[in-house]
Amino acid sequence: MEKRNYFLGCNYIIEMVSGKWKPSIICSLGLAPKRFGELRRYLLNLYGTAPAEKVLSQQLHQLIDEQIVKRTNYSTIPPKVVYSLTDRGKQLKGLLIQMTEFAESIQDDSVSFEYSSAVMKGEAKATHQKK
Amino acid sequence: MEKRNYFLGCNYIIEMVSGKWKPSIICSLGLAPKRFGELRRYLLNLYGTAPAEKVLSQQLHQLIDEQIVKRTNYSTIPPKVVYSLTDRGKQLKGLLIQMTEFAESIQDDSVSFEYSSAVMKGEAKATHQKK
Repeated sequence: MEKRNYFLGCNYIIEMVSGKWKPSIICSLGLAPKRFGELRRYLLNLYGTAPAEKVLSQQLHQLIDEQIVKRTNYSTIPPKVVYSLTDRGKQLKGLLIQMTEFAESIQDDSVSFEYSSAVMKGEAKATHQKK
Repeated sequence: MEKRNYFLGCNYIIEMVSGKWKPSIICSLGLAPKRFGELRRYLLNLYGTAPAEKVLSQQLHQLIDEQIVKRTNYSTIPPKVVYSLTDRGKQLKGLLIQMTEFAESIQDDSVSFEYSSAVMKGEAKATHQKK
């Protein structure tokens, strides 16, 4: 892999989690490891919408390249592949939750969030907040 | 201003600080309030490069719209305009430093950062780390 250069470390992290689904993928796997289909159904159940399989697969593989997500292959019959967070993935999840709680603390009439940090943390059923 | 809708609060924060210069602007103003020219010279001295005036002005105004940066007008002769961080800007600065320190803790051969969190915090003179 070619060496990537960033201005500051935070520019790297910001790029790493940019995109609608990545924070949600990280938080979902942080609650429990999941197979690909399970993850997609989980997102679908939670949010009422899920990324296309191709998009989810791409984003998962980008997160694997960054060592945020770990892919574990179980040699069962049939073989089973499970996705989970690495230690750095767990740390990143904590940062994402902090960012979300900060966003909620400064929320005013100019912005709305469809889902809350409680959903990310698995503390609440998803309640669509969009008005 | 039209109401903007985000999937999760963190998606809002990530968008807010996306772009090469925004974290650096926030951290620079967090060390001390500055006039426009001072800020540009500060960035230039620190990094050996600075955003074009137009770019810096746009990014400052986006941060003012988000209430991260405060523009204070002093009715002196000549009038003086000073940019500083709001309370929420100071909180965001803390998050950016956390993200940078996290990035540094997971840094391997695949990524490099030109400047360190110590520079963001004003603890070190900028030493260009690019190899």
